Formats: sequence, structure tokens, C-alpha cells
Amino acid sequence: METLSPSILTRTIRQRPAESHKGTYGRVTLVGGNANFGGAIIMASAAAVYSGAGLVTTVTDPSNQSSLHARLPEAMFADLGNLHQLRDLVSTADVVVVGPGLGTDESSLMALNATFSAIHAEQTVVIDGSAITLIASHHLTLPAARLVMTPHQMEWQRLSGLAIADQTVTNNQAAVADLKATVVVKSHRTQIYTPNGVYENPLGTPAQATGGMGDTLAGMVGGFLAQFANPTDAVLAAVYSHSAIAEELAATQYVVLPHQIITEIPHFMKTHEAN
Amino acid sequence: METLSPSILTRTIRQRPAESHKGTYGRVTLVGGNANFGGAIIMASAAAVYSGAGLVTTVTDPSNQSSLHARLPEAMFADLGNLHQLRDLVSTADVVVVGPGLGTDESSLMALNATFSAIHAEQTVVIDGSAITLIASHHLTLPAARLVMTPHQMEWQRLSGLAIADQTVTNNQAAVADLKATVVVKSHRTQIYTPNGVYENPLGTPAQATGGMGDTLAGMVGGFLAQFANPTDAVLAAVYSHSAIAEELAATQYVVLPHQIITEIPHFMKTHEAN
Amino acid sequence: METLSPSILTRTIRQRPAESHKGTYGRVTLVGGNANFGGAIIMASAAAVYSGAGLVTTVTDPSNQSSLHARLPEAMFADLGNLHQLRDLVSTADVVVVGPGLGTDESSLMALNATFSAIHAEQTVVIDGSAITLIASHHLTLPAARLVMTPHQMEWQRLSGLAIADQTVTNNQAAVADLKATVVVKSHRTQIYTPNGVYENPLGTPAQATGGMGDTLAGMVGGFLAQFANPTDAVLAAVYSHSAIAEELAATQYVVLPHQIITEIPHFMKTHEAN
Amino acid sequence: METLSPSILTRTIRQRPAESHKGTYGRVTLVGGNANFGGAIIMASAAAVYSGAGLVTTVTDPSNQSSLHARLPEAMFADLGNLHQLRDLVSTADVVVVGPGLGTDESSLMALNATFSAIHAEQTVVIDGSAITLIASHHLTLPAARLVMTPHQMEWQRLSGLAIADQTVTNNQAAVADLKATVVVKSHRTQIYTPNGVYENPLGTPAQATGGMGDTLAGMVGGFLAQFANPTDAVLAAVYSHSAIAEELAATQYVVLPHQIITEIPHFMKTHEAN
Repeated sequence: METLSPSILTRTIRQRPAESHKGTYGRVTLVGGNANFGGAIIMASAAAVYSGAGLVTTVTDPSNQSSLHARLPEAMFADLGNLHQLRDLVSTADVVVVGPGLGTDESSLMALNATFSAIHAEQTVVIDGSAITLIASHHLTLPAARLVMTPHQMEWQRLSGLAIADQTVTNNQAAVADLKATVVVKSHRTQIYTPNGVYENPLGTPAQATGGMGDTLAGMVGGFLAQFANPTDAVLAAVYSHSAIAEELAATQYVVLPHQIITEIPHFMKTHEAN
Repeated sequence: METLSPSILTRTIRQRPAESHKGTYGRVTLVGGNANFGGAIIMASAAAVYSGAGLVTTVTDPSNQSSLHARLPEAMFADLGNLHQLRDLVSTADVVVVGPGLGTDESSLMALNATFSAIHAEQTVVIDGSAITLIASHHLTLPAARLVMTPHQMEWQRLSGLAIADQTVTNNQAAVADLKATVVVKSHRTQIYTPNGVYENPLGTPAQATGGMGDTLAGMVGGFLAQFANPTDAVLAAVYSHSAIAEELAATQYVVLPHQIITEIPHFMKTHEAN
Repeated sequence: METLSPSILTRTIRQRPAESHKGTYGRVTLVGGNANFGGAIIMASAAAVYSGAGLVTTVTDPSNQSSLHARLPEAMFADLGNLHQLRDLVSTADVVVVGPGLGTDESSLMALNATFSAIHAEQTVVIDGSAITLIASHHLTLPAARLVMTPHQMEWQRLSGLAIADQTVTNNQAAVADLKATVVVKSHRTQIYTPNGVYENPLGTPAQATGGMGDTLAGMVGGFLAQFANPTDAVLAAVYSHSAIAEELAATQYVVLPHQIITEIPHFMKTHEAN
Repeated sequence: METLSPSILTRTIRQRPAESHKGTYGRVTLVGGNANFGGAIIMASAAAVYSGAGLVTTVTDPSNQSSLHARLPEAMFADLGNLHQLRDLVSTADVVVVGPGLGTDESSLMALNATFSAIHAEQTVVIDGSAITLIASHHLTLPAARLVMTPHQMEWQRLSGLAIADQTVTNNQAAVADLKATVVVKSHRTQIYTPNGVYENPLGTPAQATGGMGDTLAGMVGGFLAQFANPTDAVLAAVYSHSAIAEELAATQYVVLPHQIITEIPHFMKTHEAN
């Protein structure tokens, strides 16, 4: 298991080419946010936008439209209940992030199934939060695409069948191999299981232990994957950046809120951009 | 009567353990905010989030969903009119804050009764604002749980039957003993009646004399109770912090607004964290 | 005609007494904001809150509830179409501000008439914007109360019958005498006609020439009247402060937006508070 | 082809005359923002307000009313589906901006046709985004007025019939002559085709390659046209300012978001104001 260091940032966050346009930096579609958990998909969407994704569309419950635009006019909105439109927006994306605030009821399941049905092999899918729970409880077949999953330890238990005490590196590697996915197992020292090996994030602060942190990370992972060529490095750099920003803010804050991390992303990335 | 000093902060605001997660810092459910007073529950909820509560859910009128998420994506939303869901969210919380902006009509009473019916003995309940008025006017039985009440002097009159002129320490102690609650009697020099004695807050500025201050305090009290082991100290530290932040801001502001206090909480707590 | 100077500030903005509460600083009810002009009443309400009014309630079209709370959780909301509730909120206020964004159609007129019908002699009423137009076009009888009107020159023409070219001090004084009101005639050098004489505001910058400035002033006038003992001085200090803040901001901005002035009010007032 | 320099700023952004009012700085009506793309018209409207337009009205889908006012209380709102009101607001404007987030379905087309039908010769119309696509796909006749079009290269292909590879200056000039419009062809080095010649913008950063940049530019162009006497210079100065602000922000940000550019406009314009 390799410990991440700042080199993952300079290896990944490259200076943007002068001749480029928003299409160069990827189209990200985020699916989530039912009538109770709208904040989750708003934070995930904002994290994708502030990470530099070229075009971001948020497919969410209509009751979240106003708050989404009030916080983030840069994102486009679509109605989670319009499954035809959802499939269109999923199939035309470069990266799909599904799960933040999606919920686990019948309509959540329908949206998740519609999302998976529209995925094709060239795409990258970040699967987070409620989507992981739904996959585990309904034994859903994962789509054939590049997959990144971001469970916390309890979600990973549901998905892998491994009790938290049994989540050793060896056991996790075996479970990950079955999933054919990159898996980010979130804890106070997050581990990332990738096709290129296992990594541990040395950063992270208890000031981050607050609702919405995972949603924010999922959006950052989506935003980094949309822009950077090496997908494993993109995931690693997003995980590392998320914690590094939190640590910086925690120097002067007892608790660090997700939206504060989001605001700092463009500055942090600039500081660690490769020359 | 003991006068509070900064020692209450360092005694209470402990450095967070490295190995912890959002569950460590408590689940807070806030109940309030009818169609007229949505701002009150938004401010209370924000105060709980910025104080460091692990997970915050706001049960409020649906007309407040958009503004809640626009200001505070970190909080989850539930519909105040769905009493079944309300009881679920109350019974699974560590701390319940009920009252800010709840109103005093028939549906407010139904929501308060549903809240009380779902409380169990291991929980802490912060009772504020309209909830205090409803208890007094409908002679409601308080739930069997750890209770913290945060009346201003007029609400305390309604609840205790003591006219403001008669609210002496001795009289208040007798009334508090009947309630089996910690009572924060808010005035320009707030007094806190606890099982461990009576305390006076030496801080507070007339710049704070504006709508929403009490809602903000209720949310801070809830947020502190969710995190800190000693409940009396948690209440005292929240009261002291609220006024201390206000005094700092009042050095350069003629009036201090509740949302400005909220924004400062993480910084203030870091400054006064025990090493 | 006397030219205002900073002495109006120190004469008016007094250090707050330590023993005071939000009731000490007045209850302000603002009536305005139809489905098209919601921003106007939001800005007026925010100006009242940031000026230090103790309790602020905004009676506006329901379509403005979410944006009001998203920007200003400190204000309470009421539905402009519920005339019974409107009259209650008007009759229990210390200061009523009516007109910003109210519009001039039949329902606007009904709301204005309901407002006027609930006013009693001890109250202060600030009449702005659409309300002035409605009074002029429907020949409404003004309520018997302390009145402050804040027309721009075109609205003053409608109300007084004086063409802009004829709005001399002498002519204006005669028209004002008929109205039994303090009248703020807004222009690049605003004049204030009071029972104690006529004043000119020497401040003001063309950077302020943008929509919403008048709404902001109306809210400040309401907020100052709610707090300060001398009503003429309160109006003069509000007018002067509004322009002084704008001039400060215009040092570094080509245009100054109303919400930027609002944010600065508490700082400006502190700087000019009497010791 | 002339390369723009800072001289376009000092030639255009003139010190405002002391005796002026909001009418002096123009009335701008923006038409756009369907139920999916509300953020686009919010950003365009904000750009117009922060550029200094005197009065701004946003005609958009009603689902965008709350978020518009939550972000921008300075703008007035009107319902895109009320074509009678839309025509009124268009015909009384000095400058009309049509297209940001308008969409391309039947109701979008109806709104665009209603807009064009209400335009008269003395007005300036900025045509952006979806409006350009609709014109191309439905072969709409352009209104007889001063026209400014702001296509990106793909939209310009649709409108001119010139494939991106064929968009040479000579070919573009011919196509522009047919349109009788000033055309801003957006790319990483934007070209502006005007009655006075062809200009190239030497500024622009890949940090700007994110959704909403074009909407923001359209709003700035509208805001500058509303205020400055020479329309060609107004367009050139808006294009130059937009990129110059982005470059400044990109010194410390990996990606620059549209709303961050908007916030800087008043400061940037003050810095480059002619004395």
C-alpha cells in the first residue's frame, strides 16, 4: 500500500492548454437529490464545477431547482422524474456521478436503473451514497464502464459483505477485484483500491466529520475525472486535494463545512498545478 | 450564582479525536419554521451545523425547503406536515431542537405533540420559542428526557407563572426544580439554571438586540450538546460563545446579525479549543 | 435650506443602552413586492434589518418567500394576499414601510388600502415607490399618522402636481404643507422637507444610479425611524448615511449596488455612533 | 484586423456625469432561461447589473424567479410565458439581450418571435446562445435594429454556414455583411466583426473554459451598450473587460467561474475609467 504525497497533485493537475474550450474539460452529469436530500447533490455539483469540469448538469428532484440555481447558476438543471431526459443526459456525458442524496425508495431505484441503462463503455461512472446502498440491497448489476465507487466503511460493508472489522487490505482487494471498479473506502485514513495498486491518504482531519463531506468528494472525483487523462491519478488527486484543503481550513476552524472546501478548490488547484 | 468565564470554553471545546466520523459528533433534528417564520429554523439549523454537529436534519414547512438549501446545503430537509416522518427523525436523533419559528396554531401544536411523543429518555431536547409558548398555553406534559429550555423573560413568565419583576434567582430556582430542566433565561445578562447550580453570563451587547438571536442560540446549544460530554458545560459554553462572538463583531458593527454570528462559530471555537 | 453634515449622524446614532432588547429597537412591517418586483421589498427589508430595527416582517407576494429567506433569514414573512393578516401586522408595528415593488394594479391597491386602514395615529408610515403612484392616481386619503414620503422627482410630480422644472423649494414647501408629511425628494442632490425646515443632502454619486437604490433608502429610513427618538433626525441621518456609504464604495467601484450598501450599514453606523 | 488594447477601456468607460439618474444608464431587458437553463439568464442578468445598467428586467421561466431574486434582488422579473408582457418589456427597453438559456423548443421559439416582433429600429439587440441556434434552424428574419450577435464557433457555423475550418476573416466578413450585425465570434482568441473593422481580443485564459462564460459576456455586452455612446466601442470594451478580469482571477485560480467575473466588474471598470 502506497501513501499518497503532494506529487499526485503536480502529476495530475496540468496547466491547461491555451487552445481549449469548455468541451475540452468534460461534460459531467450528476444524478441525485430527492425531496429530502437536495443539499447533497447541490454540494456534489458545486464541487464538480469548482474543480473545473467544463459543463455540469444536475438531475434532481424539481423541489431542488431553486436552491441549486441560487447557489450555483453555473449548473444546468433537469428533473429526476423525467427518465427519458435523464437517460439522454447520462448517455451524452463524459462522467456521470450518481447517488448523492438520491435516497433509497422506489423512485430512487428507478432513477438509478435508468442511469445505469444509459451508460456505455466509454464513460466513467462515480457511484456514491444512496446508489451504493441500492446496489447492495437490490443486487443490481453494475454497468459496463469505468467505475469509481466511494463508499464509507458502512456502505462498503453493505456492498462487499465485509464487516468493518474484516475490511483488511487483502480482503478489500479481493472484493474490489470482483467489482471491476476503483473503490475509495472512506474513513479517517481513506484507502483507494485501483487497478494500479492500493493507496492510503495520509491527510484528513476530524474537523471534516460533518454531513456533506462525502457528497463533496464525489463531485470533486467527477470533476477531476472529467479533465485529467489518467483516471487513477484523477481519483487519487481528488481524494488528496479534498483532505488537504480541509486541513488548511482546519488550522483556523473547529469544524470545516463542505461548501468552504468547495470555494477553495480553484485556489488549491492553482497552487499545485504543474508548470 | 457563578459568573461564567472563558474557562468554560477550554473545559468544554475539546480537541477532536483523530479517529472519529460524523456520527461521533451527533445527529441533531430541528423542528420548527412554519410558513411565516422559516428564517428562524434556518438560522437555528445553521447554528447547529456551524457549531460542529455531525448530521443535521431540519423538519419545517415545505415552503422553507428552497431557502434552507440555498443557505445551508449541509442540512437535510423533512416536511413538518408529515408527522410519521417527523417522529422517525426525532426518535433517531441524539439531540432535538424544537420551537424556532414553529408558530402557535393548531398544526404547530400537532407537530410539537408528535415531537414529544417520539422522544425517549436517552435524548436531549432543546425547547425554544413557540414551543415554550405552546407548553404554557396548553399545559403540555414535558417528555421524560434531558431537557434544556431557552425562554426569554416573557416566555419564562408564561412558563413559570413568574412576572418578570418576580424572576429572582430564588423564585426561578423553585420554578426550574418543578420543570426538571436546565433553563436558560435570556436577557441582557442571561442566567442559566442547571442541576449543578446557577450561572450568569457576563457577556452580551445591545448590538445583539435583533430578531433571530434566540433562534441562533437554540441551534448552538443543540450543536454543542450533540458533541460535548458534559451537558451542563455544553449549554454554558454555547451561551458564552454566542455572546462572545457578538461582542467581537460589535466592536465594528452597530448591530450584529444572527447569520454573522453563525459564520464566526467555527473560528471562535478553534481559538478557544483546549489543547 | 440647510445642508446636511456628518453632525446629523452623531446627533442621531446613539450608543445603545446596555439594558435593552429587540423590542427597544422597534417593530417594522414592510408591505410590497408583487410577483414582478420582489427584489425591491427584499432590499428594503434587508436595509431595515441591517440598520438595526429590532423585528422586521415582510408582507409580500408568496412567490417572494423563498428568495426573501434565502437572502434574509432575519425577516419574517407574510402573504400580501391575506389582507386580514396584513392589517394585523400593520397595526402592531411601530413603523410601516409601504410601496417598494408593490405595483400599481388592483391587488396592489387593495393591499395599500388595507395598510392605510390599519394605521393608527401613534405610528410612523414610510410611503415609497408604487404606493406614491397609487396615491396620486387614485387620490387616496393619507392615514392620520406620522408620514414620511420618499418620491423621486417624477413620483413627486405625480403626487404634488408640480412638473420637475417647477419643483422649487418654495413650491415644494407649499405642496408638502398640504400633505402633512416629511417628504424626501430624491435626485442627485436630494432635498428633505420636514416640519423643522428644508435640508439638502450634499452627498451622492452617479455610481448609485441603478435600480433598487430607492427601495434601499426606504428600508433604511424605516429602520432608523424605528430606533431613534427624533423622527426628523432619523430621516435625515438615513438619507445622509445611504449616500455616504455609496460614496465610500464608489471610490473603488464604477457602479455601487444596493445590496452592497446594505451590507455596509452596520459598519458605517458604528463608525459614526455618538460616544 | 486590429488587436484590442487597454485603450478601448479608457476610450469607452467614461466618468459618469454628476447629474444623472438610473434612466441615464439604460433599461435592459433580458429574455431567456427555460426550466432547465435558468442559471444562464441569471448570470447574464447579473452581468448587466454589475456592469452598471440602470434598470434590468429578466424575462424567464417562472421556476427561475426565486433563484433570480435570491442571487440578484436588483433585477425585476417577468414570466417568459406571458408574451404580451414580454413584448411590452422588450419594446420599452433600450437594449434587449435574448438567448441565454432560452432553449430551442416550441415555447423558446415563440418567445424569440415575440421578442423580435416587439423590437423597433432605435433599439439594440444582443443575440446569444439558443437564440442563434433558433435563428439558424428556423431561418428567422432578424429584426431591423442595431444587432450584436455573440456566437461561439459552432453557433457561428450554424448561422453563417461556414464550417469552423472555413471561418477565416475574409469569409467571416462576407457572412457578417449579410447579417448587418456586429458579430462576436467567441474562441480562445475572440474576433469581433464591426462596421468599423475587425478586431481581435488578445486576452483570454483556458481557466475560463467553463459553462456560463458566454452568458456572462452577453450580459456585459448588454450592460455596456446601455451606457456608452459608441456601440462598437461598447462591445469591444465588454469583450476585453470580460477576458481581462478572467486573466486577473486566473493568476490565483485554476478555473474561473462566471459569477466571480461578475463580482469583479464594478472594480475593474473603476480601475479603467477615463478621468
